[in-house]
Amino acid sequence: MALMDKYIQKLNELDFKNMHNNDFLLTWEKSQEELEAVFTVAEALQELRKNNISSKIFHSGLGVSLFRDNSTRTRFSFASACNLLGLEVQDLDEGKSQISHGETVRETANMISFMADVIGIRDDMYIGKGNTYMREVSEAVQKGHEEGTLEQRPTLVNLQCDIDHPTQCMADALHLINEFGGIENLKGKKIAMSWAYSPSYGKPLSVPQGIIGLLTRFGMDVVLAHPEGYEVMSEVEEIAIKNAAESGGSFTKTNSMEEAFKDADIVYPKSWAPYVAMEKRTDLYAKGDQAGINALEKELLAHNAEHKHWQCTEELMKTTKNGNALYLHCLPADITGVSCEVGEVDDSVFDRYRKELYKEASYKPYIIAAMIFLSKCQNPQGTLKTLEERASKRKFE
Amino acid sequence: MALMDKYIQKLNELDFKNMHNNDFLLTWEKSQEELEAVFTVAEALQELRKNNISSKIFHSGLGVSLFRDNSTRTRFSFASACNLLGLEVQDLDEGKSQISHGETVRETANMISFMADVIGIRDDMYIGKGNTYMREVSEAVQKGHEEGTLEQRPTLVNLQCDIDHPTQCMADALHLINEFGGIENLKGKKIAMSWAYSPSYGKPLSVPQGIIGLLTRFGMDVVLAHPEGYEVMSEVEEIAIKNAAESGGSFTKTNSMEEAFKDADIVYPKSWAPYVAMEKRTDLYAKGDQAGINALEKELLAHNAEHKHWQCTEELMKTTKNGNALYLHCLPADITGVSCEVGEVDDSVFDRYRKELYKEASYKPYIIAAMIFLSKCQNPQGTLKTLEERASKRKFE
Amino acid sequence: MALMDKYIQKLNELDFKNMHNNDFLLTWEKSQEELEAVFTVAEALQELRKNNISSKIFHSGLGVSLFRDNSTRTRFSFASACNLLGLEVQDLDEGKSQISHGETVRETANMISFMADVIGIRDDMYIGKGNTYMREVSEAVQKGHEEGTLEQRPTLVNLQCDIDHPTQCMADALHLINEFGGIENLKGKKIAMSWAYSPSYGKPLSVPQGIIGLLTRFGMDVVLAHPEGYEVMSEVEEIAIKNAAESGGSFTKTNSMEEAFKDADIVYPKSWAPYVAMEKRTDLYAKGDQAGINALEKELLAHNAEHKHWQCTEELMKTTKNGNALYLHCLPADITGVSCEVGEVDDSVFDRYRKELYKEASYKPYIIAAMIFLSKCQNPQGTLKTLEERASKRKFE
Repeated sequence: MALMDKYIQKLNELDFKNMHNNDFLLTWEKSQEELEAVFTVAEALQELRKNNISSKIFHSGLGVSLFRDNSTRTRFSFASACNLLGLEVQDLDEGKSQISHGETVRETANMISFMADVIGIRDDMYIGKGNTYMREVSEAVQKGHEEGTLEQRPTLVNLQCDIDHPTQCMADALHLINEFGGIENLKGKKIAMSWAYSPSYGKPLSVPQGIIGLLTRFGMDVVLAHPEGYEVMSEVEEIAIKNAAESGGSFTKTNSMEEAFKDADIVYPKSWAPYVAMEKRTDLYAKGDQAGINALEKELLAHNAEHKHWQCTEELMKTTKNGNALYLHCLPADITGVSCEVGEVDDSVFDRYRKELYKEASYKPYIIAAMIFLSKCQNPQGTLKTLEERASKRKFE
Repeated sequence: MALMDKYIQKLNELDFKNMHNNDFLLTWEKSQEELEAVFTVAEALQELRKNNISSKIFHSGLGVSLFRDNSTRTRFSFASACNLLGLEVQDLDEGKSQISHGETVRETANMISFMADVIGIRDDMYIGKGNTYMREVSEAVQKGHEEGTLEQRPTLVNLQCDIDHPTQCMADALHLINEFGGIENLKGKKIAMSWAYSPSYGKPLSVPQGIIGLLTRFGMDVVLAHPEGYEVMSEVEEIAIKNAAESGGSFTKTNSMEEAFKDADIVYPKSWAPYVAMEKRTDLYAKGDQAGINALEKELLAHNAEHKHWQCTEELMKTTKNGNALYLHCLPADITGVSCEVGEVDDSVFDRYRKELYKEASYKPYIIAAMIFLSKCQNPQGTLKTLEERASKRKFE
Repeated sequence: MALMDKYIQKLNELDFKNMHNNDFLLTWEKSQEELEAVFTVAEALQELRKNNISSKIFHSGLGVSLFRDNSTRTRFSFASACNLLGLEVQDLDEGKSQISHGETVRETANMISFMADVIGIRDDMYIGKGNTYMREVSEAVQKGHEEGTLEQRPTLVNLQCDIDHPTQCMADALHLINEFGGIENLKGKKIAMSWAYSPSYGKPLSVPQGIIGLLTRFGMDVVLAHPEGYEVMSEVEEIAIKNAAESGGSFTKTNSMEEAFKDADIVYPKSWAPYVAMEKRTDLYAKGDQAGINALEKELLAHNAEHKHWQCTEELMKTTKNGNALYLHCLPADITGVSCEVGEVDDSVFDRYRKELYKEASYKPYIIAAMIFLSKCQNPQGTLKTLEERASKRKFE
């Protein structure tokens, strides 16, 4: 059987025609079959690469990365995905740019897109801003394409916003699918998405929100655990509730890390900032109230320090299913005794799962590439077939 | 008829053999036919792209961008042009480099050029410096090539200097050609290249200079308007006068925006700094006299504020030909009520021309690519033909 | 005879099988035949390029550059080498990254390597750190590859560390081979690797160390000259002594620049920092003792100023073999009266050798590309043959 056949057969069973020429902004805007198409294409691209077959579908073209926050792994994942498909990455570094001169989002979006096939945006700093910004960019390039300014319509990929982190969570999910031997085996598995202590306090909410919004779709028992005051956006919780009802799974909340970990198949302990505080910070920032921001920071750090016992310790791991729940993290983690005095996870726990954690991360470039591939190809099955038959060696020896 | 035939036929009528292995630094160093060759190749490359045919003429190679000022759109235009032709962009960010250690222009130019096919330079900050710098780089790589240090001689493209902004003005001109239905239709059209108020004061003179130096060649009636004290370089005015005489057009100056706009077919209202003041600033900068620079800035801002009424308002637009002159701008514009309290143009005027403005900007990558193409190909007609016949899909589906 | 035949024949005589899938960190870890393989492949790649034949061996893939110090020429050399082979460069700028959040070298190394075929590292600032860091990265990606995290194992290339600067010194050596008409003609030639005065004081030791560690292998008479207190690492001196004994050359030291230059065939006058002082600075830096660092700097500058007469003057050049020893420098040089009042070399000496100096530098991209090529190709001879037969034009006209 040819290399691509099983992926093509799987895709033939799925309806994902709406992904063509479409963005990827939130997982819950996509149908179950569309998500499965992403997983399938990600694995097909990985299979091609393992067999040294090039999956370049662009002879030329740009992938624009627009990062409004520092980043290593997301930047490299996006660059890797673009390179895999034949796009050259061009960073829009706002520091090097003239954007501050007062141009609008609409203008910038068009000006950078004359030859852009993809725009990847990371904008996770302020509640209510990041995803909104992405939609403004998306509308701007849509209009630019309709008006004939842009010969092609660049696809937007959300590389992390204030609401969701779809490329991370889809990579996490693909990791679970592989670890548990299939998407159908996720049904009934318990995952503890738990807040954990970190000496820093302002981490985005996009991962916990993305996880509860995504994993509730696979019939899993998703438990969200955090101290009082560390609530996530209620809109996303509602999505999780709805998803769980539809998939036959469950979504529950608790203020006890111990309760969440009890008999869990998977644990995802991670620090995040309180939603309400982040909303406040966004307002203070908009007002330019630095004194207010400083006061808030101090308050938050104090608040944070009250929850130092929220750690993923060896003791806590023992209470999970058979004492060996799969440990997930989006990385980098705050590791007790390594990157900080007291952090999210015990050194020995982290170390035991290091191999799996790196594997988890390794899916991200393929997930991003699959999102682009499904937006750009009218007939993805045909393209996979042709890539296999073209058989251009990725590395020529 | 094959796709490229009409472009090839047009090129066959033109003499542009001197462009081979040559730089593009000032439009007035190029013959009329050479300029037309650039327009023709730009449109041919656009046609190939629209038909999903790759125009990569390099299998590998670097396009070096050397920006001595922040930039978004020029950076992306250059990156797009390079990508379209198969060159990978490598930025020479002087901040990241060792140039300050005291090496000469000649040395830097050679060190970055071992595999460079193109060097794009933007250096518009100081009067008397930018274009001079480009010529130093050009001579250095010419010598390096002759001496055998450089296997290939990189082509220089002026991405904006103190004297001209050829890639912008050529894109503006191509926009006019398309809007008015042919280069021959520009004859007798009146264009108002007018100073306009902006709360900032130190914008380069390259656009007004480039426009009067270029558009006078097409038989247009070019009117340069500015308040007293905002003169442009007299050398460029002399070129405009000479061009107008040769082309059967005219070049006039006025201190009245109203006079310039009256019955104009095209208006280009834009802020720039007074030439004499910029010359002074260059001297102060060379002496390291920061107090002098601060005093000058204050003086200039006060001077500037006296001319707040130089705005492209709806009222003024009504006085143009049929009340609907084509509005041009190199972007980003200072828009009244959007990017500043009072600026170059009324919000409603800008908005009405937004689609055209973006179209105008969209030509720039093709103009840059055409300049490179004409320098690199010994037989551009043959190469266009071969590209069409090769028929490599830009985007493979 | 086909273009690649002479290179292939040369390679057939050499044993370099251990270079496959291996890093290039120190020249003295490589056998004599392995070094010759690098020179041979570098020249073969240059020959292909001169004949407009593409040497892309990657259809896609990333070359990661990790610079912990500013750089122009090394950055461009690495980018050029990657581009020549078909890899897209992705810079890991630690400023833009999240590395400070506390992740380990092992983690970062894996996170940037999912699609990395090569990692080039420059880390020359602190004694005992740079090469150690490279080995940590190397072990991390080796492990990541073995564990299945990384589909391919990225090759590490040392772009300058605290101990060696192999890409520079190999380029220097290839320059000598070409200037003297063959590697066998280096036997018995005297080279003066001499300290020279520069108004700055903290330059890396990697070049003098790399030179004495490499050129002693070709039967040369290598003289290391420096004022007292400017010793290089004793481990490297021991390697030079051992090399000289094996190759039939010699390694001697002197505190007199005059003695070193006397009858020298080649001179390499260059400033570097005293090893012991650099070790002290590394400790002070680790302790965060800024006052200590400042005091040390002051002391070193004073110490430095005592040796202003260590200059490569015209007078000194006259004492070399026939008064015309070949002058080498890694560039940029501190040139008396050009980049500083008093520096490493007389303006007129530098100028007379400018063409040769640029030639010397021009080998570096090919040397880097050859190191990558030999690590990536299982059968380099076969690949060179196939590249010639494939005959893809680098620049298509």
